[in-house]
Amino acid sequence: MAKAKTGQAFGHGDIKLFAGSGSPDLAREISDYLNVPLEDYELVEFPNENLFVKLKKSIRGQDVYLIQSMASPVHRNIMEMLLMIDCLNRDSAGRITAVFPYMAYARSDKKDQPRVPITARLIADMIEVAGTDRYMTIDLHAGQIQGFFSIPGDVLTAFHMLSDYFLEKDLKNGVVATADLGFAKKGRNFAAKLGLPLAFVEKRRKGDHPRAKAHSVIGDVSGKDVILVDDEVLTGGSVCEAVDILKDHGANDVYLSFTHALLVPPAFEEIRAHPIKEIVTTNTLPISPENKLDNMTILSVAPLLGEVILRAHEGRSVGELFNE
Amino acid sequence: MAKAKTGQAFGHGDIKLFAGSGSPDLAREISDYLNVPLEDYELVEFPNENLFVKLKKSIRGQDVYLIQSMASPVHRNIMEMLLMIDCLNRDSAGRITAVFPYMAYARSDKKDQPRVPITARLIADMIEVAGTDRYMTIDLHAGQIQGFFSIPGDVLTAFHMLSDYFLEKDLKNGVVATADLGFAKKGRNFAAKLGLPLAFVEKRRKGDHPRAKAHSVIGDVSGKDVILVDDEVLTGGSVCEAVDILKDHGANDVYLSFTHALLVPPAFEEIRAHPIKEIVTTNTLPISPENKLDNMTILSVAPLLGEVILRAHEGRSVGELFNE
Amino acid sequence: MAKAKTGQAFGHGDIKLFAGSGSPDLAREISDYLNVPLEDYELVEFPNENLFVKLKKSIRGQDVYLIQSMASPVHRNIMEMLLMIDCLNRDSAGRITAVFPYMAYARSDKKDQPRVPITARLIADMIEVAGTDRYMTIDLHAGQIQGFFSIPGDVLTAFHMLSDYFLEKDLKNGVVATADLGFAKKGRNFAAKLGLPLAFVEKRRKGDHPRAKAHSVIGDVSGKDVILVDDEVLTGGSVCEAVDILKDHGANDVYLSFTHALLVPPAFEEIRAHPIKEIVTTNTLPISPENKLDNMTILSVAPLLGEVILRAHEGRSVGELFNE
Amino acid sequence: MAKAKTGQAFGHGDIKLFAGSGSPDLAREISDYLNVPLEDYELVEFPNENLFVKLKKSIRGQDVYLIQSMASPVHRNIMEMLLMIDCLNRDSAGRITAVFPYMAYARSDKKDQPRVPITARLIADMIEVAGTDRYMTIDLHAGQIQGFFSIPGDVLTAFHMLSDYFLEKDLKNGVVATADLGFAKKGRNFAAKLGLPLAFVEKRRKGDHPRAKAHSVIGDVSGKDVILVDDEVLTGGSVCEAVDILKDHGANDVYLSFTHALLVPPAFEEIRAHPIKEIVTTNTLPISPENKLDNMTILSVAPLLGEVILRAHEGRSVGELFNE
Amino acid sequence: MAKAKTGQAFGHGDIKLFAGSGSPDLAREISDYLNVPLEDYELVEFPNENLFVKLKKSIRGQDVYLIQSMASPVHRNIMEMLLMIDCLNRDSAGRITAVFPYMAYARSDKKDQPRVPITARLIADMIEVAGTDRYMTIDLHAGQIQGFFSIPGDVLTAFHMLSDYFLEKDLKNGVVATADLGFAKKGRNFAAKLGLPLAFVEKRRKGDHPRAKAHSVIGDVSGKDVILVDDEVLTGGSVCEAVDILKDHGANDVYLSFTHALLVPPAFEEIRAHPIKEIVTTNTLPISPENKLDNMTILSVAPLLGEVILRAHEGRSVGELFNE
Amino acid sequence: MAKAKTGQAFGHGDIKLFAGSGSPDLAREISDYLNVPLEDYELVEFPNENLFVKLKKSIRGQDVYLIQSMASPVHRNIMEMLLMIDCLNRDSAGRITAVFPYMAYARSDKKDQPRVPITARLIADMIEVAGTDRYMTIDLHAGQIQGFFSIPGDVLTAFHMLSDYFLEKDLKNGVVATADLGFAKKGRNFAAKLGLPLAFVEKRRKGDHPRAKAHSVIGDVSGKDVILVDDEVLTGGSVCEAVDILKDHGANDVYLSFTHALLVPPAFEEIRAHPIKEIVTTNTLPISPENKLDNMTILSVAPLLGEVILRAHEGRSVGELFNE
Repeated sequence: MAKAKTGQAFGHGDIKLFAGSGSPDLAREISDYLNVPLEDYELVEFPNENLFVKLKKSIRGQDVYLIQSMASPVHRNIMEMLLMIDCLNRDSAGRITAVFPYMAYARSDKKDQPRVPITARLIADMIEVAGTDRYMTIDLHAGQIQGFFSIPGDVLTAFHMLSDYFLEKDLKNGVVATADLGFAKKGRNFAAKLGLPLAFVEKRRKGDHPRAKAHSVIGDVSGKDVILVDDEVLTGGSVCEAVDILKDHGANDVYLSFTHALLVPPAFEEIRAHPIKEIVTTNTLPISPENKLDNMTILSVAPLLGEVILRAHEGRSVGELFNE
Repeated sequence: MAKAKTGQAFGHGDIKLFAGSGSPDLAREISDYLNVPLEDYELVEFPNENLFVKLKKSIRGQDVYLIQSMASPVHRNIMEMLLMIDCLNRDSAGRITAVFPYMAYARSDKKDQPRVPITARLIADMIEVAGTDRYMTIDLHAGQIQGFFSIPGDVLTAFHMLSDYFLEKDLKNGVVATADLGFAKKGRNFAAKLGLPLAFVEKRRKGDHPRAKAHSVIGDVSGKDVILVDDEVLTGGSVCEAVDILKDHGANDVYLSFTHALLVPPAFEEIRAHPIKEIVTTNTLPISPENKLDNMTILSVAPLLGEVILRAHEGRSVGELFNE
Repeated sequence: MAKAKTGQAFGHGDIKLFAGSGSPDLAREISDYLNVPLEDYELVEFPNENLFVKLKKSIRGQDVYLIQSMASPVHRNIMEMLLMIDCLNRDSAGRITAVFPYMAYARSDKKDQPRVPITARLIADMIEVAGTDRYMTIDLHAGQIQGFFSIPGDVLTAFHMLSDYFLEKDLKNGVVATADLGFAKKGRNFAAKLGLPLAFVEKRRKGDHPRAKAHSVIGDVSGKDVILVDDEVLTGGSVCEAVDILKDHGANDVYLSFTHALLVPPAFEEIRAHPIKEIVTTNTLPISPENKLDNMTILSVAPLLGEVILRAHEGRSVGELFNE
Repeated sequence: MAKAKTGQAFGHGDIKLFAGSGSPDLAREISDYLNVPLEDYELVEFPNENLFVKLKKSIRGQDVYLIQSMASPVHRNIMEMLLMIDCLNRDSAGRITAVFPYMAYARSDKKDQPRVPITARLIADMIEVAGTDRYMTIDLHAGQIQGFFSIPGDVLTAFHMLSDYFLEKDLKNGVVATADLGFAKKGRNFAAKLGLPLAFVEKRRKGDHPRAKAHSVIGDVSGKDVILVDDEVLTGGSVCEAVDILKDHGANDVYLSFTHALLVPPAFEEIRAHPIKEIVTTNTLPISPENKLDNMTILSVAPLLGEVILRAHEGRSVGELFNE
Repeated sequence: MAKAKTGQAFGHGDIKLFAGSGSPDLAREISDYLNVPLEDYELVEFPNENLFVKLKKSIRGQDVYLIQSMASPVHRNIMEMLLMIDCLNRDSAGRITAVFPYMAYARSDKKDQPRVPITARLIADMIEVAGTDRYMTIDLHAGQIQGFFSIPGDVLTAFHMLSDYFLEKDLKNGVVATADLGFAKKGRNFAAKLGLPLAFVEKRRKGDHPRAKAHSVIGDVSGKDVILVDDEVLTGGSVCEAVDILKDHGANDVYLSFTHALLVPPAFEEIRAHPIKEIVTTNTLPISPENKLDNMTILSVAPLLGEVILRAHEGRSVGELFNE
Repeated sequence: MAKAKTGQAFGHGDIKLFAGSGSPDLAREISDYLNVPLEDYELVEFPNENLFVKLKKSIRGQDVYLIQSMASPVHRNIMEMLLMIDCLNRDSAGRITAVFPYMAYARSDKKDQPRVPITARLIADMIEVAGTDRYMTIDLHAGQIQGFFSIPGDVLTAFHMLSDYFLEKDLKNGVVATADLGFAKKGRNFAAKLGLPLAFVEKRRKGDHPRAKAHSVIGDVSGKDVILVDDEVLTGGSVCEAVDILKDHGANDVYLSFTHALLVPPAFEEIRAHPIKEIVTTNTLPISPENKLDNMTILSVAPLLGEVILRAHEGRSVGELFNE
């Protein structure tokens, strides 16, 4: 089946930006970057939790971007995104791009045991069946998830931003480490860019007790400044365990670098309670100012998304942005 | 799955109008309204009833509107519409809009008993599988039928036209009535716009005989001018029964107002034989001049359809037309 | 496209019942009715709200029924249903039937104003894209919603149960009323079965103030016992307004009869505060025992659903159940 | 996409036969052959031409065969077939096979000029979108039309019947001829089976006048008995012209052999007026007894269709029937 | 389902030409004709035969034409075309047209015996599922194959070129012949254009031996110059047999005319060894210069394809090119 | 869309096994395991490379398994598989399972750079569009590829076989290593099962020269027996480099363990030339006996596939096989 194409966005039809409930601040920043206002619409949540939207103005034939991170409350925000797309589609939008900087359920991307779903594929199918033409997202848990979509998309990465930040720090005696072996290859890219060696924190089940775990460090971290990299941090449990192990193995300063700051309780308490030099992350998910820790640096993905929206609208290369 | 979009119609490609056999006069009126000629094409009906079309000129990349009401002969006209769309599609039209002011089979829209089809959904699927990008229609029997389509459409209404006509009449002592309780809510909207009360003619099966029916009037019609509203009139049987009942209950003048004038025999005889003050309807279906009754007012939907085609072509709001 | 069929359920493969989180008690009742145990599975909600399921035993080739009303929390329960279906499908179930006694978003079934979605169609598409073969539900808000599905389904009704209950009451001087004109036709069927007359409570906006409304009663309720019928009650606001109006117009006892007891706050307070003789409803949605009012009668749909599941499994007629 | 399969018909579920309006006599013959009764159903044609069906009994899970030739009135009969299939599908049939011995629009199978449709593909798509699982038909105008379907089908041929009939005649001095060069290859197969030589009647446009045509005979027919073969005869015009030419070239007896007897006026008059020894055809389309000419032999396809239905139901080879 | 449309190519977005490995010389000629450069891309064949492509520059929003004849190695070239289309699609091309002057597997277009595939339909489905918007090809083996595609296409013909070439030759005493009765109708068109009579070489199996064949000539070739026409020549076996038979029947000069020069061994030896006056064919498939026989005339389809690409890009009629 | 289900295979219809050209020996072993004969069919490769199949016997309604590894020649074998499936489908197979123990193009599973395809998704789409109901494969390069399919499948693993083999060896002083960080997590599972530590060989680009690479070992291998694990070995280049590095770092014996033995030249020479103690692999791809090295152990996946085919046919759990 042929898929919808970008051609119609060439120099005709205007960019129309919509901000979903999942990431309003980020949407505002993108709106500022592009100097394009956010469109107004009515969003009602009925007492039976059902959502209802009504656009204030027709977007017939326009090049529409819906910015909606799959933040908490996750299921409500996914549903809001889908019915918004149905609404845009039935109002005859020219092209609809779903911009979800963080994709929920991305860790449910394979059957690593029998009798489980592949929910990330289901999410991709739901997005397509709602009538989405294109999508944009950042740092999918696995690159293969792009193959769950048959519509084209721009799968971006905060890798450049995060690694550039550490390049400037110029850690003389650094090492890049990961606490999840599934992130080993991406960790290697991080290390290679910084010209640093690589190490791994490995976790294994110990004996029969389901919670008993043994940790080891593969590679050398003693006396070194460690940058512990990952794609997302949820409760902070694993990452803080890793910090402890690294410290036990003689690590000097430990930095955390990750794209998606889920940080659900007790994440902030956990992180605060551990000897972490600095946490570097992004705003793909909203972080309330009162939660922001002192040693937390939040880089904004708004210029990245804004620039890519512009290039998508004008039919210019996105890869070029990164000299690719 | 992503659906075709309107963007390509923005300021490039021209409106191309085709008139199907189901509503040639209406198509001509729309052509006049838009000052856009009807395209020429060859339509042959072979002795085996099979239809064949050949376009006289290529419509490659154009914004095509096929105006074809699903008038009698219904099945032939549906098939003509579908093969015309296949033809336009295989000739690489830029966008194809099927404009069927009246949709046949719209009353077959649910399973209100077991072991029956939902033919209106089948019709929607047939229209989509033929390669239609968008559709336009007027006063679907049930608003939900729009949900049978996954392609976007403009589902218009003659409500504004018809109610405005009666607003101007300014009936001092009027009441709006319906003879079909499925039309109660729309009847209410009619009444509310005119600031008139509402009444209902109810029909129930009486005893075991399938044809024996008892009628009653709910609400007060005595001494009042009644506007009997509905979406379509077929043989005139139900509506004329209702007129009799209303008169029996002391109604003064009775007006009929409905969108789709199917009016198959013996409709004209029935209506002529009943004390109806005026019949107000539209030309979504062709009415031959010799059939037109003296007390029949036919409002044209051509300006409505013409204006909506123009707005669809230019990517402007349709809802705005009605201050919505 | 050809759709999955029931044939494979004929005398081979067993019924496998799964209870979703939306209606566990009802599922247990169905399990009892059928004398078929509920299947065991692991359901985890991660701290990031993402759901995960793992079946305890393979259901390869079996005839699976997932009982999951779209109860509160609505979006989470919809998602749970969808990923459960993906899981069953990827485990090679023989046939998957989604049994949702109440369908959320069913009131978003048409575009009665421009620039809004048709969310019920979206829900139907999501259910189909997840890999569902068939569905069962009760009293859809509009019968047409069955046409939103291209897979076959059993759309059942509590009409027989509810009307039989009132038949036994044998109200000598009764009248059936509706407070929503969109329910007028179904109200008529109720009245016809009971052999009672019909009346309507009509609500209109008054002046310019959005909240100011005028009510009237069409038909005669004075001195009569009124059965106020509807498909669902949410906050109880409209229905209690209607009770007041009916009482103002001289109604004797007022009964409420509806299928879906959403009853979100302040429904119980509202209902308790109004002079309602009896509320008759069903358990398509869970009602906690502490909420159950003294004058509330809850009829169980479990025998109905159980019997239909059995007939679907054995390839026997469902319509026959109701002499249709 | 995976397609529905026949497996479920294996020894469970029963054959259910439905006779459409297009070929009731043939359906009765098939019913007799199989000793399986025709199912009862209600078919209504409303005054607005819309069709309505209601099955008398549930066919849930059964192996259903709908016998409906696309005879005149063609469009009505196509629509009847489609809505019947929708009905069977929504009643959860186990498997639905559309049996249309003659497929209308099969000559609209390619774009041999620009800006025309390929209606046969559209018909195939309509049959699939209605929910058909399999189809059976006889002598498609072009074998390639089978490739228009993605569902499996049994495309049968009357070739064996017709050629066997002439084999028994044992024409000593015969020649097989075709009047349509598109039928040349099939004509060759006919000739090869009978061990006879081959000849062609060629028709060319003459000069500028659209109707002026020159005919020639390629190959030798002088003093020979000619069997003029084709797939269908419509008005008889071309075939009777060919008879004249053959006679002019000295042909002895001329026989006609073709599968589909469309025979619309003035076919019977034309044929009667020409020196044709015998017309051999089949009942894929109904021929009224009063029209049957004295020199017309109508072979019944009922045993062929009946046997193939039986084999399809039992999962046995159909090709084997013809030693293929 | 709605299909992708050409509209977006109107005056915006540029033609981007890509040359696949199957027909690089032809692509270069088309590039010259259009004065549009071939785009650069990296194509790697890994040691495991897997292909990999990477575009050098983004083609976001452009009107892309991939020129790739399905030449030898056939399967590798088909796969190269498909993954190239996937690549273009995921890079958000505005519109993708697959230009395959020769379509492989086109002879597998029907089930003329049981238990065989219809591979040409499979190829069409593979092209569509890869995300192709439109296609162009030349002289499909059967016109019906266009109906295997649901996307629009330009199915062109070399008939005009080839027949014009012979028109100029002005053979006074010519006859057009075919060796394949499936090509009889197209042979007739060739003959009619040249104003020449028609003849056929017929081949039949003789006795029980599978290879024993009897040939005959239908029509008169004695003393005449014969143009033997076909769509493709593979090993040259059949065509050279036909030349022998024609000579046996007294033919004077014999010319060959066909579109697709597959010419696999021992085709060149066969043809060289037979008394053929001239072979006229095209470059839809590459012919290496060292293989080109002295009496072989190769007409280029590059101007035809170039002109059609231009018209498709600009939304102008293609049929007009041939006064159709 | 609903997908075809396994139910019909329950106790009716027989297993039918077909051996494709890609893995005939393995198919024979599976046939022996199941004691079910391989079905006979005709496979022709025409001089134009086009493939043609014809089944010898009808498989109408049967439960068919096509065993076809995507071995060399890769593209021809993929095409053979697809047209075989089309053939089985058009012959009305009851259920079609494509069994490809090795899936080609699985490494093209994500866009890790712009402007490249995701060919593994394309392959999945091609398999589905050909009409496959289910698939079986072993050790997909990435587990996520299962999510590229919407049809259900059994994605098996040789992990149990390979790790059990090493468990029996009982290496006292072993370490598990990987040369590809993308395989780190699977390497960890291997190590955990054997109770051994883990190490990594890391490769980085050195300076500007594209071929210059620096290797390092992360973790401790000195004096240890190393099991170097991966999913496939192609030319042996990377793996032999890793062996050298491991030896340089003091490794004792080095074992190789991998599932898919692609082993294209110069793999055998490379491996023979390096100090590898033992190579343990499987027969998912054919290895010719003359190539089999002395220190190569080939474990057969036939019992695994045979057992899973049996369980799939009988509707029994596959996960249970592995106590999952």
